[in-house]
Amino acid sequence: MKVIKTIAAMKRTRLKLPKLVGFVPTMGYLHEGHLELIRRAKAENPWTVASIFVNPRQFGPQEDYTSYPRNIPRDLAMLETVKTDIVFIPPTAEMYPPRYNTWVDIEKVTERLEGSIRPGHFRGVATVCTKLFNIVQPTKAYFGQKDAQQVIVIKRMVTDLNMNLEIIVAPTVREPDGLAMSSRNTYLKPDERQTAVVLYRALKLAQKLWSQGEQDVHRIRQAMTEMIKQEPLAEEITYISIADAKTLEELHKIEPPALVSLAVKIGRPRLIDNIILE
Amino acid sequence: MKVIKTIAAMKRTRLKLPKLVGFVPTMGYLHEGHLELIRRAKAENPWTVASIFVNPRQFGPQEDYTSYPRNIPRDLAMLETVKTDIVFIPPTAEMYPPRYNTWVDIEKVTERLEGSIRPGHFRGVATVCTKLFNIVQPTKAYFGQKDAQQVIVIKRMVTDLNMNLEIIVAPTVREPDGLAMSSRNTYLKPDERQTAVVLYRALKLAQKLWSQGEQDVHRIRQAMTEMIKQEPLAEEITYISIADAKTLEELHKIEPPALVSLAVKIGRPRLIDNIILE
Repeated sequence: MKVIKTIAAMKRTRLKLPKLVGFVPTMGYLHEGHLELIRRAKAENPWTVASIFVNPRQFGPQEDYTSYPRNIPRDLAMLETVKTDIVFIPPTAEMYPPRYNTWVDIEKVTERLEGSIRPGHFRGVATVCTKLFNIVQPTKAYFGQKDAQQVIVIKRMVTDLNMNLEIIVAPTVREPDGLAMSSRNTYLKPDERQTAVVLYRALKLAQKLWSQGEQDVHRIRQAMTEMIKQEPLAEEITYISIADAKTLEELHKIEPPALVSLAVKIGRPRLIDNIILE
Repeated sequence: MKVIKTIAAMKRTRLKLPKLVGFVPTMGYLHEGHLELIRRAKAENPWTVASIFVNPRQFGPQEDYTSYPRNIPRDLAMLETVKTDIVFIPPTAEMYPPRYNTWVDIEKVTERLEGSIRPGHFRGVATVCTKLFNIVQPTKAYFGQKDAQQVIVIKRMVTDLNMNLEIIVAPTVREPDGLAMSSRNTYLKPDERQTAVVLYRALKLAQKLWSQGEQDVHRIRQAMTEMIKQEPLAEEITYISIADAKTLEELHKIEPPALVSLAVKIGRPRLIDNIILE
């Protein structure tokens, strides 16, 4: 496994690789969800590059950029176990040098859900992905379905800007009890960790109601809300959304494919999860 | 000379070309300035692609998008004379399909000069260049110094987004009397055309004053203004700027390299021109 720590070295290395390269961009503090993305990239491409970069520009001023969990030695050990070919760890000062001034903005789909409560978040995500795509020049890049809106935003960007890669989306990887894996789960205290499974339980409830014939979005949302409100540690529901899976426009009556997504603050972190009804 | 009229065909053709490709993006209605860019690209690259695309997204609602001069047969004949290898003419509906929503924004350098009087102009320019660069995948792209701020914006974008090409800037090509070549010169009536040379004369005056030891920007601007005001058909000076050639910050005292640029409305068009004091 080759570890590359400058943009110039990554570009030089890329020139020597064959055309097909799979890429898994991460913010580090890896979990099984990331490793699944790498395994998939390995299976589908002769070379696989992973990146570790906690991107300051996708965190708001009140968010957890400085405290976001980091542990590069642990990440490298995990990346070794899945035989990652190349790990790219760019320095922040190289990614955003003085006078840095260019941003990639996706409108409409970024105005809802996570975008509405994290202004500038998707601008930061789209910008850093554009930069990483230009540096690594992958033919496929892999993202997890857990960040459903991110996937929609990145796909929109790749299509709109005619980028030369394919975006592959892998299913959310879950803990045995159903909690979606996330680096931010590390913030949860033991009792909060137990409560956190309610996000997935509420999603499964939505799926069950729909499979039983319920199409009214208001009633499904109501049932999910009641289930979550029974948990004293689930402090605040930021949103429960049932939306068109492509445009993210909120639905009144379910028309598949519909994205059911929610964000709930439990202790320190605000957790997100989603399923698609199709 | 191969003419390509879809994005997919251009991408397919690019896959068959060798690594080094020179690219000259244009809005058509070509003049000698464009042909010079093609000659230079031909001299420096085994393959040269020119594009013709009047980009609606870089025109403001009150600007001349619909009336911008267009003549594809004439352009193709001119491109033949300089032995252009490939001409890419993408349809507007393919470049901006329904639901198109992605924009490349460069801050700071776009807030001044042309950017301040044409809101959204450089957003449109940066976005279409990103798209064209992704479709054509050139290793060098050629721009004229006449659009000085555009050159600064594009260079900033290429650096910031780690794009894999080099931006080459060629000197402004002028008519025998000094008027900078521009597709918009076609809007000028005969007496306006005679007046138009005053932009270049004012720039030469600035250069002369500076070479004689004048460093005070205010006095140079004053002299240029007086010269232009003597021309009755020079209706309105939009700006006369003497700025740092990299950041476009206005100077008080000339420190080379300084960009002297101006915009003057003469009849229908607002003409621009510039020189660098170095």
